Amino acid sequence: MKTKKFCLSENQMPTQWYNIVADMPTKPLPPLHPATKQPVTKEQMSAIFAEELIDQEMSTERYIDIPEEVQEIYKIWRPTPLVRATGLEKALGTPAKIYFKNESVSPAGSHKPNTAVPQAYYNYKQGIKHLTTETGAGQWGASIAFAAKHFGIDLQVFMVKVSYDQKPYRRLMMNTWGAECVASPSTLTNSGRAALERDPHCSGSLGLAISEAVEMALRRPEDTRYCLGSVLNHVVLHQTVIGQEAVKQMEMADAEPDMVIGCFGGGSNFAGIGFPFLQKNLTEGKKIRVIAVEPEGCPKLTRGEFQYDFGDVAGFTPLLPMYTLGHDFQPSDIHAGGLRYHGAGSIVSQLMKDGLIEAQAMPQVETLAAGVLFAQTEGIIPAPESTHAIAATIREALKAKEEGVSKTILFNLSGNGVIDLYAYEQYLAGALKDFSPSDEEIAKTVNQLEHLI
Amino acid sequence: MKTKKFCLSENQMPTQWYNIVADMPTKPLPPLHPATKQPVTKEQMSAIFAEELIDQEMSTERYIDIPEEVQEIYKIWRPTPLVRATGLEKALGTPAKIYFKNESVSPAGSHKPNTAVPQAYYNYKQGIKHLTTETGAGQWGASIAFAAKHFGIDLQVFMVKVSYDQKPYRRLMMNTWGAECVASPSTLTNSGRAALERDPHCSGSLGLAISEAVEMALRRPEDTRYCLGSVLNHVVLHQTVIGQEAVKQMEMADAEPDMVIGCFGGGSNFAGIGFPFLQKNLTEGKKIRVIAVEPEGCPKLTRGEFQYDFGDVAGFTPLLPMYTLGHDFQPSDIHAGGLRYHGAGSIVSQLMKDGLIEAQAMPQVETLAAGVLFAQTEGIIPAPESTHAIAATIREALKAKEEGVSKTILFNLSGNGVIDLYAYEQYLAGALKDFSPSDEEIAKTVNQLEHLI
Repeated sequence: MKTKKFCLSENQMPTQWYNIVADMPTKPLPPLHPATKQPVTKEQMSAIFAEELIDQEMSTERYIDIPEEVQEIYKIWRPTPLVRATGLEKALGTPAKIYFKNESVSPAGSHKPNTAVPQAYYNYKQGIKHLTTETGAGQWGASIAFAAKHFGIDLQVFMVKVSYDQKPYRRLMMNTWGAECVASPSTLTNSGRAALERDPHCSGSLGLAISEAVEMALRRPEDTRYCLGSVLNHVVLHQTVIGQEAVKQMEMADAEPDMVIGCFGGGSNFAGIGFPFLQKNLTEGKKIRVIAVEPEGCPKLTRGEFQYDFGDVAGFTPLLPMYTLGHDFQPSDIHAGGLRYHGAGSIVSQLMKDGLIEAQAMPQVETLAAGVLFAQTEGIIPAPESTHAIAATIREALKAKEEGVSKTILFNLSGNGVIDLYAYEQYLAGALKDFSPSDEEIAKTVNQLEHLI
Repeated sequence: MKTKKFCLSENQMPTQWYNIVADMPTKPLPPLHPATKQPVTKEQMSAIFAEELIDQEMSTERYIDIPEEVQEIYKIWRPTPLVRATGLEKALGTPAKIYFKNESVSPAGSHKPNTAVPQAYYNYKQGIKHLTTETGAGQWGASIAFAAKHFGIDLQVFMVKVSYDQKPYRRLMMNTWGAECVASPSTLTNSGRAALERDPHCSGSLGLAISEAVEMALRRPEDTRYCLGSVLNHVVLHQTVIGQEAVKQMEMADAEPDMVIGCFGGGSNFAGIGFPFLQKNLTEGKKIRVIAVEPEGCPKLTRGEFQYDFGDVAGFTPLLPMYTLGHDFQPSDIHAGGLRYHGAGSIVSQLMKDGLIEAQAMPQVETLAAGVLFAQTEGIIPAPESTHAIAATIREALKAKEEGVSKTILFNLSGNGVIDLYAYEQYLAGALKDFSPSDEEIAKTVNQLEHLI
């Protein structure tokens, strides 16, 4: 029988993170202070972030050691399996070979703990006792709750009120791991109180939750810091354990990917799977296509502008060089909450500008049809975010079938959708139809998929 | 660094199930027809179950081959990891070595797919087009939905109405895998309609759901059969892949368990982890303690009688030889829905009667305190069922600490609790207090645990 899962042993886990900045032909532009328009200094950032994380944010070293304490906790779920999607291949009748890296096996159900653990660790090492953060749908909040608990750090999570009310399970995960989860806007901060004065029924936003979390951190500079789950360089850095493992596992499988696909929100899971393969393009002359898949409802890479913009809606952060739809862009109300962010991280944005990576935008109904087919053929119910990568993979696999050529495709399964099943309910009830009926190509693909379900 | 996870490769997976009946000093008594009190014949059972499953139900062969088609699907999540619970050991400050077998990594989040897949396969092989079943909290319903889809069999699940309304996520899992999930009582069957006539607001019961599922199966004998997720001999048989893998993995870890612990509902996960170790007692003279942990709210092994009783509340099944609280016993309303069953399977009951296994009953609040500590130290949020095994493990580990002796404990983590987080919410809110305040031993253990959380 064919091998389905390619598994590394714990002693084959990466011991260093890969920093792609070292290999980039054009380095990313620095973040700027909004008032002075000068690059932000380490001192300015150190009131908010732990110092080692700022060093990593600015580093140009190719490899950065993963502390043993972090590796020890990674072993709870890492190394993660690389899986040959034989069931999906068979259903599609494609000559393409499809592999996926399964990051859904972590405690929180996604790739987020890969960065939550080192972020908690470096804060702990600096003597920080309290962390604050914000979360939208709750994937990041749950992951940092798990990590903070391990290092005995108190955590306060400001969760966008609409999600706090609609996604009680993610809030309960945070509570179970010992974190406090507060609906934002709250009465704990000036920003929260001001928002509630303007509108007592305010349902919150990620921008507002960031403001609250940062405000709380700044209030106790002696022992409190803030942390963030995507976009920033150090976050992207930590996620490269995904791709480094996948490089080894593809070798075990005796396969070389023609393309590597990841869904795209702020960029951390995409970079995590993609950068170690992109390294082969940059340093070994390989020509692997590295493809970011974003939702049509928030198409920063395919329709945004490359410019300096704020990282948050309210304009509290430094100005970041990014492909952006504008920091006040209101994404459409898609189920993939983790992809509803207006901008792309600095490194990914520079790579995009230089033509070193590709991007695609995907309508929601096609992603969920792909998710159902994947669940039925491979067993795992994917997160609505991850279904974007699956949909793009299926497009390529069907194209390979049409053209009668074999392609090797690798995608990142960034998380499972067990807590997001309402998205599937709406899809199965036929309540989602978001592509233009005139777009015959998409209609044809969706039809093909629905015929297989 | 110490190895945390002991993983087998796919080619080390068991290729046969282990049938403990072959090694039992006293064989289990046969099921009886309620009218004639004679052993039920294969012919009588074949209107309800697929024939190969009936053969397995009655088999005395020591090993039964696992079909390649079943092994192929097992590989989606098997072999599962054996994990050294270093975080839990450290928190408890115990000299005991704690290992757990992680069955929570399956598509449905529990051990149930181990039997769902072969049950669907044998029905498919016999040409069956439709399966019916019942489910309480939904773990079994979701697992058989996943399995039936793989073999192109239509599935109709009768889900106890109160769970159907309270646990929409498990119902949505079934829908995503293509199964129909009907609230029971329904208007589709005579039994359902009769129940609704008696009480239009009837919230259902497992017994009634079984009646509906069996009635639907009997209606189309040419292409429809019924299936069940616990209690029966063939179900227990399929679950022995768990223990067979664990035996090999304990050898990899260079460890031998002093005791093997599993939570106990109908007996399938307990038997799955326990029987391959019990085989060593029966055939090699080992003295491994094999311990079943049931809830105090449904204590069939510790306080039930060994006698013939019906398997369902309504009295539709054959009479089974079992430790039972009576088929009309109403278990208390605990969160561990999978352990709320009045009887124990025939094989386990005989082993219990012969003193070859042990049993303990555990109060709910202690199990959830154990679950929270496990989640915080090992990352995984355990199912309320599995927390019973964890609580018993912790008792033994604390005892080892008190006595200053090292013990090696293995328990089965039968499932994760991501869809059961309301149990944790209630516990964390202090809304669960179910042990007698006069029971100082339990109060002391709970206090110790809560001090560590």
